[in-house]
Amino acid sequence: MSTPTLLVLDAEPLPRLGRLTGRARIEHTDASSLAERLPHADVLLVWDFTSHAVREAWPGGGPRPRWVHTASAGVDHLMCPELADSETVVTNARGVFDQPIAEYVAALVLAMAKDLPTTLRLQGERTWRHRESTRVAGTRACVVGSGPIGRAIARTLKALGITTALVGRTARTGVHGPDELDRLLARADWVVAAAPLTDDTRGMFDARRFGVMQPSARFVNVGRGQLVVEDDLAEALNRRWIAGAALDVLSREPLAPESPLWGVPDLLISPHMSGDTVGWRDELGAQFVELFESWAAGRPLANVVDKKRGYVPGH
Amino acid sequence: MSTPTLLVLDAEPLPRLGRLTGRARIEHTDASSLAERLPHADVLLVWDFTSHAVREAWPGGGPRPRWVHTASAGVDHLMCPELADSETVVTNARGVFDQPIAEYVAALVLAMAKDLPTTLRLQGERTWRHRESTRVAGTRACVVGSGPIGRAIARTLKALGITTALVGRTARTGVHGPDELDRLLARADWVVAAAPLTDDTRGMFDARRFGVMQPSARFVNVGRGQLVVEDDLAEALNRRWIAGAALDVLSREPLAPESPLWGVPDLLISPHMSGDTVGWRDELGAQFVELFESWAAGRPLANVVDKKRGYVPGH
Repeated sequence: MSTPTLLVLDAEPLPRLGRLTGRARIEHTDASSLAERLPHADVLLVWDFTSHAVREAWPGGGPRPRWVHTASAGVDHLMCPELADSETVVTNARGVFDQPIAEYVAALVLAMAKDLPTTLRLQGERTWRHRESTRVAGTRACVVGSGPIGRAIARTLKALGITTALVGRTARTGVHGPDELDRLLARADWVVAAAPLTDDTRGMFDARRFGVMQPSARFVNVGRGQLVVEDDLAEALNRRWIAGAALDVLSREPLAPESPLWGVPDLLISPHMSGDTVGWRDELGAQFVELFESWAAGRPLANVVDKKRGYVPGH
Repeated sequence: MSTPTLLVLDAEPLPRLGRLTGRARIEHTDASSLAERLPHADVLLVWDFTSHAVREAWPGGGPRPRWVHTASAGVDHLMCPELADSETVVTNARGVFDQPIAEYVAALVLAMAKDLPTTLRLQGERTWRHRESTRVAGTRACVVGSGPIGRAIARTLKALGITTALVGRTARTGVHGPDELDRLLARADWVVAAAPLTDDTRGMFDARRFGVMQPSARFVNVGRGQLVVEDDLAEALNRRWIAGAALDVLSREPLAPESPLWGVPDLLISPHMSGDTVGWRDELGAQFVELFESWAAGRPLANVVDKKRGYVPGH
């Protein structure tokens, strides 16, 4: 095989690609040039995983890369019917974000249980005001999304003594099916959304589901913003249908300064950072290099996404 | 035995004492009347554990209660040489606070690792600013204090994948002795103070010890405020000798509004609430009732404090 062309859609440099020197002709592109360069690429590396450029450029004419890798867990930002129907293999960054995101969820759960946001506010006012907080051990969580991220979250919450149920697309050992979701939501102290964004999951957390939850329940989204009907969540919080929420992902990112969500009571907003611990770019780069070596050697690729479902099918 | 007199030093009612109706003559006192009432009490229950009234009233003349119970883990607020030298048995609330405090420490550690204080500040400014955070799994903690609270903290941190060393007054299986403290501090990412306040531990976290720690280290105090030389901690943070700290206990509580500590960079201050989860008063009341039943039946008391050492000796 002649030296393959690796096209990198990037907003900033990805570490570790230097290891591919001499083994790939590496070209960089931004969103505006992607459509014209796609026909000449053997491999497309989507490093700018906030971009929708692939979804927009893919349907055009001409040859297409045989392999697309996205340095993200979700593939919703790049998937389109033409890509899904094509022979192109899509892989993702499965594995890199599991433990960081699980820790981030634990941080949010504990911060809400221990009322840290109020503590920080009172500190700003130089006010000493004792309050009672809640124990997390013995509480119940429902984690929606049974991929490696959801499973890592469940393991971490269980380690804190939280009784945790996992809900996935299909029931299997250790995983509840969608038909059990409402029953589990109704008794959960913590509801964690960690599902991929697909046609089945879009908007699944809506007014009806927030209404099913307990008034003491708290909701955390570390999946994709569009899993949640954000207006419904704001109303649920304003009306005290639930006690609190934390969103690390929003339907539009970055969240605009004028969004009313910033000021919803007991809603904590963070800037899509749950998986991004020091060294994450390095890990993503190393993961891609490893996949590239398999691909170049004709070995089977890991982390192959089921393009119709929108995620890597697993255990 | 005639009905014993139970004197309760309280600022607010303690639940569950009603169970002792008919089995004890229950009298309530505040600090100002404590001295004159002590001679008539068989048992003293210190429910207002923020008060130093016992230490002040005890040395006076006349008979003294045969048993003093404090609804707290620490006994520093009530101990005085005259009580230590007396035949009076002192018991504490060992056990009630272990798991809540362990969770609180986990909340602080994760909040610092995930930079939640900055996230909350940026939310207040309606600003979306992605940052990298750190993983806690694989980091190292040193927990100073090997009683049930320290051990619960160590268990919880280990459950989060943190390599955790316990330091106690004497080396034993699973516990390092004081001679190893500086070596452990020098390599810890997290230093947690959970020791009782005694002559050995007062001021143990001073400029020298903060200087031993790594610049990336963070310090948490959930023991007693006077374990820490607070001016030294403030200087260590201002000079970036360490990266952050969280104090749930202060040498003077409540912390005065004019204290400069409120504004020290990367210092989180909370109002001595780490152990106080919903239902804690109820648990403390139930624990005392159980001890009282043992005492009235002439059975040995649990949670007996070594009055010279200042804590319940244990494993």
